[in-house]
This record gives sequence, C-alpha cells and structure tokens, in this order.
Amino acid sequence: MAAKRIDLYDTTLRDGAQQEGISFTVSDKLKITQKLDELGINYIEGGWPGSNPKDTEFFEKAKNLKLKNAVLVAFGSTRRVDTDAEKDEGLKALVRAGTRAVNIVGKSSARQVTQVLETTLPNNLKIIRESVGFLKSRGLTVFYDAEHFFDGFKIDPDYAIDTLLAAQQGGVDCLVLCDTNGGTLPAEVADIVKQVRKKTSKPLGIHAHNDSELAVAVSLAAVENGAQHVEGTINGYGERCGNANLCSIIPALKLKMGYACVTARQLAKLTDASRFVAEVANLAPSSHQPYVGLSAFLHKAGLHVSALSKWEESYQHIDPELVGNSPKVVISELSGKSNIIFKAKELGIPIQPSGKEARRILEQIKELESLGFQYEDADASFELLIHRSQEGYKPPFELVDYMVVVERHRRLPAQGGKVEFLSEATIKVKVDNKIMHTASEGNGPVNALDFALRKGLLEFYPGLSKVDLIDYKVRILEGSSGTGSQVRVFIESSNGKVKWRTVGSSTNIIEASWLALYDSMEYFLLRVNKSARRKK
Amino acid sequence: MAAKRIDLYDTTLRDGAQQEGISFTVSDKLKITQKLDELGINYIEGGWPGSNPKDTEFFEKAKNLKLKNAVLVAFGSTRRVDTDAEKDEGLKALVRAGTRAVNIVGKSSARQVTQVLETTLPNNLKIIRESVGFLKSRGLTVFYDAEHFFDGFKIDPDYAIDTLLAAQQGGVDCLVLCDTNGGTLPAEVADIVKQVRKKTSKPLGIHAHNDSELAVAVSLAAVENGAQHVEGTINGYGERCGNANLCSIIPALKLKMGYACVTARQLAKLTDASRFVAEVANLAPSSHQPYVGLSAFLHKAGLHVSALSKWEESYQHIDPELVGNSPKVVISELSGKSNIIFKAKELGIPIQPSGKEARRILEQIKELESLGFQYEDADASFELLIHRSQEGYKPPFELVDYMVVVERHRRLPAQGGKVEFLSEATIKVKVDNKIMHTASEGNGPVNALDFALRKGLLEFYPGLSKVDLIDYKVRILEGSSGTGSQVRVFIESSNGKVKWRTVGSSTNIIEASWLALYDSMEYFLLRVNKSARRKK
Repeated sequence: MAAKRIDLYDTTLRDGAQQEGISFTVSDKLKITQKLDELGINYIEGGWPGSNPKDTEFFEKAKNLKLKNAVLVAFGSTRRVDTDAEKDEGLKALVRAGTRAVNIVGKSSARQVTQVLETTLPNNLKIIRESVGFLKSRGLTVFYDAEHFFDGFKIDPDYAIDTLLAAQQGGVDCLVLCDTNGGTLPAEVADIVKQVRKKTSKPLGIHAHNDSELAVAVSLAAVENGAQHVEGTINGYGERCGNANLCSIIPALKLKMGYACVTARQLAKLTDASRFVAEVANLAPSSHQPYVGLSAFLHKAGLHVSALSKWEESYQHIDPELVGNSPKVVISELSGKSNIIFKAKELGIPIQPSGKEARRILEQIKELESLGFQYEDADASFELLIHRSQEGYKPPFELVDYMVVVERHRRLPAQGGKVEFLSEATIKVKVDNKIMHTASEGNGPVNALDFALRKGLLEFYPGLSKVDLIDYKVRILEGSSGTGSQVRVFIESSNGKVKWRTVGSSTNIIEASWLALYDSMEYFLLRVNKSARRKK
Repeated sequence: MAAKRIDLYDTTLRDGAQQEGISFTVSDKLKITQKLDELGINYIEGGWPGSNPKDTEFFEKAKNLKLKNAVLVAFGSTRRVDTDAEKDEGLKALVRAGTRAVNIVGKSSARQVTQVLETTLPNNLKIIRESVGFLKSRGLTVFYDAEHFFDGFKIDPDYAIDTLLAAQQGGVDCLVLCDTNGGTLPAEVADIVKQVRKKTSKPLGIHAHNDSELAVAVSLAAVENGAQHVEGTINGYGERCGNANLCSIIPALKLKMGYACVTARQLAKLTDASRFVAEVANLAPSSHQPYVGLSAFLHKAGLHVSALSKWEESYQHIDPELVGNSPKVVISELSGKSNIIFKAKELGIPIQPSGKEARRILEQIKELESLGFQYEDADASFELLIHRSQEGYKPPFELVDYMVVVERHRRLPAQGGKVEFLSEATIKVKVDNKIMHTASEGNGPVNALDFALRKGLLEFYPGLSKVDLIDYKVRILEGSSGTGSQVRVFIESSNGKVKWRTVGSSTNIIEASWLALYDSMEYFLLRVNKSARRKK
C-alpha cells in the first residue's frame, strides 16, 4: 500500500512574519518562496493581499516566479459582517492576488462570534458559507482556517462543527483546525480531530502554535488521527512562542511515521532552507534546533575516538545527512586534519594527509581558537589561514601600523556648549614595498578604520570600492569578565554578488574589528575579485 | 478524589550542564539548588560525584544547605563489569556524597550491552541488580535511569523489561525510562509505557531529550500512561537539542492536566527561576520561550486598546501571572506612564499620575529608545533617568571630556619586530567644581576608560574601588549595517553584594561603553553606597 500523502503548507511569510523583529521585504519574500518550492512545500502562503501595499506587491511580482512544486496561497478572512461577499473588499483583493489557492480565516468559537465579531451565531455561519462560496465560484482552491477551533470545541462542540459544515456547504477544499492560542494538549487534539472526522467529509488540516511547547506534537497527533494538511513555519517563527516548526514536522512525518510528503532529495535541503530563512530574517540560527541546528548531532561528553562509530549509532536518532545536516564532532586532531585537507583541496592547495603541514595548520587553528577566534562561521578567514601557511604566499597588502583616536569634547558655552565627538583613524599599509599613510574620520572608531584602510588601498585596488560590510557582530566571550573581556568580531562582506565572513578576536575591540576587516579586504582581493588590481 | 501526585526531578546541574557553553561553578550550583528548592522541585540531581573534583566539592558543600522541599540526588552508573559492587569506586563515591537519594544509569538496550558495554546480556542484568542492591543496602532511595530504554524496547522488548526487573530485584524505588537520543515519538512512548506498566511493579519515571522537538510531549504522554516521576531541566538545557523542559512541563501538569506537583505559590516563581538559571548559565533567556519568555504573552498585531481585554482572554492560553510572567504590551503612553510613576514612588520621588512630569520622562524614554537605549534590562540607568529629570538633582560627578587612543605598532626589526598595542584614555571629570584630569592605559580602549575614570574619582569616592564590572555585553542593533552600526552596550556591576545593570547606545562603541560605565559609577554612588564619599 502506498504511503498516505500529507500536504505541507508554509506560512512563514504571513504568520511567521508576525514574530518580533522579523520584517521581510518583497525581495526577501520572493527569495524565500523560491527556497520553499525547492524544499518541496506544497502550499506557500505569501501574505494578506490588500492588508498592506507590500503584500499586494508581492503577489504581483510572484506571478513571474516559476515554481516547480508549490502552489502560492493568498490569505484573507471571511467577509465583513455588514456587506455581501461579492462586495467585500477583502475577498475581492484575494481574487485579484491571482493565486490558484486562497485561505480564509473565520470564527469557529461561539464565544469569539458573540464577543469579538459581535454578531449572531447563525449569521456567522452564513458569513462563512457565503465567503467560501464566493471564492469557489471564482474557481479557486479554498482553505478555511477555523480560528480558535479547539477552544471553541471545548466550549460548544456542536457550534464549532457547524462552522466547518458551513464551510463545506460553501464548497471548501480543506478544513484547517487552528489552535490559535497554542494551549491545547496533544491528547485533546487527537480526541477532537477524531470526533471532527466523523462529522465532516472534507480533508482536515492542522494549524498549531507553540505556546505550550507542544506545536510539533499537536501537529503529529492531528495527522495520526486523520489530518492530511499541516500548516507551519520554517524554524517555528511566529508571534509569542512561534508556530509549529516545519523543520521538525517534515522529518518526523517522512522518516519516522512513513508518510509521503517531500522526496528524499528535497528533505536533504532542509538544513539549508532553515539557515537560509534565518539569514533572510536576520536572526541567528539556533544551534540547538532539532534536526537542522549546528549542535543537533553534537556530542560533548568525552569519548575515545575509537568509540565514535559505536556512539554515532546510539546517540543519533537519525542519520544527519538525511536532512542535510552533519554531525558536529568536538575538534579532535583527526577530524580537524581531514577538514583542513578537504578545504585545502577545494582551494587547489595540495596538502598531504599524513604530512606535517596539516598538523602545523591544525596547531595554529587550535591556538587561535584558544585566543577566541572561531572559524566555523568565518570561512573566508579560514581560507586565508591556509593560504598564509603556504611558503611564498604574497598577500595583496600588509599593515604597518594604525592609530585610532576617539574624543568626546564639550564645547564652551560660547561655542554652543554642545557635546562633540571625533573618531579618527590613521593607517599605514604597504603594497609592493610602497607605503601608503592615510587618515579618515568615521562614525565611530571601527568605521574610521574601515574608511582609512580603503582610502589607502583604493589607489592600487579600485575594485575595493564595491565591497560593502553588510554585517558587523560583536560578541563578548563567555568566561571572561568586565571591560577587559575577550571580544570576538564577525564581519560579513559582499560585493553585491558574493558574500564572505571573517573573524577577529582580541581583548581590544578595535584590534578584533581590525583583524576581521583586514581579512575581509584580503579575501576579496585574493578570491572574489582577482583582477581588482589596477594595471600600472 | 485527590489529584495524582507527580514527582519533579531536575537534572539541570548534571545533564543540563552538558550543553555547549554551560560551565557551572560550585557556587553557581549551590545557588541554583536553592532556587530549585524554592520552586518546589522534589529531587535535585547535583552532579556525578567522583567523576570530577567540582562535583565532589559540590556535594560536600551542599550538606550545609537548608532545603525546604527538595531531596538532593547524586548521579552515577551501575558498577564496572570487572569488579564487585562493594569494591566499585563509582558506587562508593555515590555513597560518600552523603545524599539521601542516588540515581544510577544502566544499560537497558540489548545492543548497547553487547556493543558498547561489551558483556553478556545476563551479566548486565546481574550488574544492575547488584548495583541497585548495594545502594539499597546503604539505606538510600535509588532511581534507575534505564538508558536507551525506548530504542532497546523496539529492538528487544523482553530484554528491556528484564533490565527493569533486575533493578526491581535489587529493590529500586523508581524505574526511569530514558529516551536517550530523543528520537521516540509521543505515541510510541505512550504505547511502551503502557506495556511496561503491566510488567513491572515499581513507580515509573520518564527522562526525555528534545532531538525531535517532542521532549515535553513525550514526558506528558508518559505521565498520561502511568509515569509518576518526570526528569528534565530548567529552560530545557542539555546537550544537542536539550532535555525535556521543566518550565513547560510543570505548568502543563499543574494547570492543564490537574496533577499535584508544585503549589500555586511555587508555580508563580517559575519565570523567576527560568531567568535566574539563564543568568547563572550566562545564556540569554529566549524571549520566545513558552510560559516564561518575555514575549510569551505578547501580541504584535495592531489592536485598539479597547479591544485589549477581549483579546487577552482569547490569545492567552493561561493567565501569565500564574507562572509569574506578565503580558508584554507594546509600549503605549498608558503603560509607560504607570510604570514610571510606580518606579518613581519606589525611589521616593512623588510624581503625579496626571502631571506633565511623567509625560516628559516618557517622551525622553521614547526618544532614547529610538536611539537604541533599552531600559527593560538596565534598571539602574532607568532609575538615574528619573533622578536626572528632577529639578535640583546634583550628580556626584560630571564628565568634562575624554580622549581614547588605540595604537597598533610594529617595532623595527632591531627592536624585535613584534607587534605592540597601546590603549590609553585621558579623562576630565568634575566633582564639586574641581576638575580631575587623569590618564590610564588598559587592556583595550574601554578598559582604559574604566581605569582612567576610577583614577579620577577615587580621591573623592574611595568606595568605588569595591565596584567590579562583572559583565560587559555588546549588541549591534538590527536594521543597521556595517561598521557604522548603532551599538548597544550593557554593563553589569557589583560591589560583591548588590548587582546593577546600565545601558549605553551610540554608533560609536567607545561612547556607548562610556555611557554605560558612567551610569554604573553614578548609580553606585547614588544608590548603593551613599556614604562612599570621602569626608573632607
């Protein structure tokens, strides 16, 4: 018998974007849509057209996307109490969005109808039936998100079911039961879904929130009891405690429960999709996130290397490669060396596995890591380290020295008495034995250093003007204390096409920033834009 | 009928400490033990005596703790294959720890026995029986953590049960079923616990890991099917994806499932306990954490204030006060003002609710927050802001100006060719119209400023020598980019008794640090040590 098929419905772009701090641009949304399509998501909810200009623009532009797997969905709500479906601006905006499928949220809890919508129970049923009917008459696939369904069912099960039947009468394609406040337990969900299944005839879906840290379990419980459509978000993004996390639901459905959803090849893109969405959302990925986190398959307890293979089997609940992740092994001479050799090969630098060279580089990395550097998130700095270890490596420029001055000065009352700041850097760099000595002011000391360095180098490397520092992160390292702490700086740079990340570490925040800055420029000249050099 | 009692067992100090980056000192562990006791935890696993000197020292010092609710537990493993229980160093160390209860982990999966322990199946049963028996003969309460129980049960259910029966024969008090690699689904756990219950007679416990984002659900499923003992950690700390999160399990058991565990009063300390442990672990609390997170009861969608009460009921799955949390309402004039009035009253500064003063302070806060300041985590800066708004407020000192120089200089080959750093700050402060002009070097520019400021002030305020800056955090604010980003600095200070937190923000990291430093010293002089001033 073929495995039962489950439809995956992603609402990262709508419900996920409700999380504090997330604000997607139209271009972000288009990129994420593409990524979700590659992951094998069946339905991608793009936003609420008509609710804001951005979402309207998104649906306009999304018409040009070539999606291989996914159907785009526009989200809206049942019609207003005081109008007809045909005249309702919201429903008309949904139709105008031009998607093949739409999802409308409606009230399924009797209390919500009387207290929030402020209408009668029968009138709400009419609203649902007519709204669904109107959209069906336009030839659309229609989902009904039954808001507060489980709470509503607990108060008045018959009415909650009646709302679903109203949607059915309107011709709905899928009845999505929502645990809107995230408070329902998996056992309750299992029981209620079973009852709903007996009284309705359309496919059922589940939409859960994570307020009780149970959204994944609730989603799986609904599927086990008959739901065939699961709504969630990448990384569980969403307001309050987030939505059901598709990154945990998809591998459970596919690998542990044997349902048909994404293909094995698509599943192997899960980790990449998770990190991509985190990056676009400008949120640090959680290293402890199940399945896709950097540490999801890490083991810290001290084990002899020879026990590793035995261990892998017993401490890994799945093979991490199935979801595109890899086991993180605490740096050991063995793992470190093979990593270096692999990377060097990629760079076209042959390093012997048994040779002294790999060991020397590894020793250097260990020393630098003990000083606070961290190469896992700074591949450009890691590549430079290998390059620099090569005899005869000639860097594109060398620092001689720098000086940074920061002044805060209160002007005299006669001069207005205002506080003035000055941040100024002077820098000496050497290119081809020629020393450039430049100076620049900046918006803070690191910005001044950045400007002064480029000023010095632009004469030789005009291509540097294209480099933007798009992210600058500062971390005080754990275990150190007070203002003399060890500081780690990450810089992410881009020339508009390629991105690279560099790291610096020092107790001096200026020096830590400098080191990351230096690596960024050197990497660009060496690897990204080899012809950046001015011909003389 | 009285509610069924569930025993809560915390392993934050042992399994939780396996999380990357967590490293508790003995004093940290003692503080957390006290906190867990106040929360109403029944058993607190303090560590593995004998495995490292720190844990041995912890149990020695813990003997002096006066615990009201909790029993301290020492953790260890079944005896070695090649010795007798009476001669086993590990078991002897457990007895020496001097706790009333112990927990030993043993192999319950047949594959683990033959492949990892490398002994016969019957011999492993003997090891379990004798180890438990030895500890029981010493009058201890004995828990048996059945490692890899669920995986083992799926491979060889009879043998998995036999290991539990062996522990029973030894006289065990509780059989704890462990989902060691976190891969088992709640439905499987429910089914297996039911079967185990039929074949064993001792109380059952559950110990789950979160690798499938299901640890809370697995724990609840075990309880629903007969387990009466739940092991977990505060905030779900633990290696890989963490352990079962007691902060989510406790409110579910008590508020949603009606079991007897902590009292209502203890439950109201949950949020505080969560944040306390995060602080001691030096990890940022997750604002999206269910029940206890800062945003767990926040709503972002735009709603009119008059709709708030209707909303609260429908979007909050529980009353946040029950777990000691509070709903986070997006800053409004209303909430802001009452907050200011409340704080001012605490400080002994009467502010009229309807007056201009509160509005003026609120406007100032809004402006500063738009500049990157954030007062929620910096109560000392918030208090100073109110003080400074008072007419006639005379600060203990005033900054005139400062200058910071950072130099990186490569010495000439004749001088050794090494790179040298200099960080130097000069500072002018005014106390009683007397200007102090001092200078200091430091380990980085902020450290130099810190030293120079104190040097200038110590003559007037010798008490300042007691102030330590115990934490210094730098955050690049979202939405800004590159090296010209807005930077927010938090400093936590202590005089060994009291701690206070201050904030600074600027595009200039030196200035942001300075502002937080300045507030720290001023707060100390104003509020912590009012008599720090030298009598003249």
